[in-house]
Amino acid sequence: MDIKKYLHEKRDLVDTFLKEYYRNPHTPPVLQEAMGYSLFAGGKRVRPVLALAAYETCGGDPADIVPYASTLELIHTYSLIHDDLPSMDNDDLRRGKPTNHKVFGEAIAILAGDALLTDAFAILSDPSLSSRITPLRLLLALREVALASGLDGMVAGQVQDILSEKKEPDRETLHFIHTRKTGALLRASVRMGPILFGSDQEILDALSMYGEHVGLAFQVIDDILDIEGVTEELGKMVGGDEKIKKMTYPRLYGLHKSKEIAENLITNAHAALSLFSSEADTLRKIADYVLTRRS
Amino acid sequence: MDIKKYLHEKRDLVDTFLKEYYRNPHTPPVLQEAMGYSLFAGGKRVRPVLALAAYETCGGDPADIVPYASTLELIHTYSLIHDDLPSMDNDDLRRGKPTNHKVFGEAIAILAGDALLTDAFAILSDPSLSSRITPLRLLLALREVALASGLDGMVAGQVQDILSEKKEPDRETLHFIHTRKTGALLRASVRMGPILFGSDQEILDALSMYGEHVGLAFQVIDDILDIEGVTEELGKMVGGDEKIKKMTYPRLYGLHKSKEIAENLITNAHAALSLFSSEADTLRKIADYVLTRRS
Repeated sequence: MDIKKYLHEKRDLVDTFLKEYYRNPHTPPVLQEAMGYSLFAGGKRVRPVLALAAYETCGGDPADIVPYASTLELIHTYSLIHDDLPSMDNDDLRRGKPTNHKVFGEAIAILAGDALLTDAFAILSDPSLSSRITPLRLLLALREVALASGLDGMVAGQVQDILSEKKEPDRETLHFIHTRKTGALLRASVRMGPILFGSDQEILDALSMYGEHVGLAFQVIDDILDIEGVTEELGKMVGGDEKIKKMTYPRLYGLHKSKEIAENLITNAHAALSLFSSEADTLRKIADYVLTRRS
Repeated sequence: MDIKKYLHEKRDLVDTFLKEYYRNPHTPPVLQEAMGYSLFAGGKRVRPVLALAAYETCGGDPADIVPYASTLELIHTYSLIHDDLPSMDNDDLRRGKPTNHKVFGEAIAILAGDALLTDAFAILSDPSLSSRITPLRLLLALREVALASGLDGMVAGQVQDILSEKKEPDRETLHFIHTRKTGALLRASVRMGPILFGSDQEILDALSMYGEHVGLAFQVIDDILDIEGVTEELGKMVGGDEKIKKMTYPRLYGLHKSKEIAENLITNAHAALSLFSSEADTLRKIADYVLTRRS
């Protein structure tokens, strides 16, 4: 299986659903415009694809959960819009375009993020979007996403990230930030698969472990790309972390050691999949892709 | 029945649940502090009380849905924090205290709002919080709240509100703002009752109509209080709407006519309850309270 082809195919499924979902015009138009501006800015849809691949690994047909998997991208996009705000990371460039607030102003950007987050839950609570998923499983998947996004998840990571700027990095704080800010939603993305499929605890545990390792590796690679990456490939300015003295893996461990850590995490992600045979090959290839990605 | 006593009792149920829910410390502490600062600032819990009263009208015991009703206050509080931000209404005072961003800074205020919104959905997706409510009913109630809060509801109202500042008010735009910004969540609060109880369509329709009229009346009275109210009673500066030339009922219709409109709306709210006998008396008294409130 060609993993790039798989990623593209699944990304297209997600994009098709999202475009269809936002097809009808809403009032006032500028809100929908601001939401679409960031949502359709060429994101790779890593989180939805992880959910689809995990669901497939459990034995399901990914086509059955595309709407629910797509909500992970709504939440990811909302978090990027809010993170980029002047009062937070104050970023001007994202995915090769001016950031949301640069185009629409701060107020609309904040509200576009709010609406994206809210829409994620509106979709995740619509049982009519799939005939395969029981209300209870849908409710549990929604709860998984909510818990990963909020006070003990992504938002906590972002708050700690802000509090830690310009401070000397320490192991514990760094781990806290990365597992919450990026890791939590990636882990929840993977877990959405077995939760929606109704897999047993052993499978859920194994995939959780996989998601945890891949999620943390993803952020460590992000830190590395902020130093070694190319602005044109990344679509955002490199060196941004250093500029505002973010707490990153390279700052604490150096580049070489950070790469080793990422490699070890991916090795552990593979190990977590040991109870699966070929049905988990897609997840294995996604783990390798996370390690070698350039953007 | 003494409506003030009823409101106090139900408010205490909501507050007890929310305090219990946030009892354990979360990391980083400042996030939880910022959330609690606005959540426990003496709000009247109008939305949760409406949900509890509507559930009771349908024949249920309000105690069974306190956690779910309480989420309406999380969403209301998040919306106040974001509305008060410098890039939006730029308010310094709320419920008699400095606004959230004045105390915690813009970044933490935005994130505290995000976490409150997310927590609402985490609670609404936890079927273990009530043994009486089926997963499907919970899912439908959650969806009701999400739809009322997002792109076609509260957020749309807030965006239109911002776009309409300093513009000449017109009937249609004013109605759009008020039914979305305040009306939508109040209507959803009332509808949560019959949805969780599993009432038939006739009852749901009647209560929706009640909620729509009460919701709009609530905002018209808000506009009036912004002119006639007393800062000490309201806990926020009066005259704020006029200062930033908000589109309000008094600006379009004048004070006298606005009061008449509010009275008519409450008359219609009463009419919507005509298929109920004494079991809807609480909702009737709440409608009257909305009309006569001073804060």
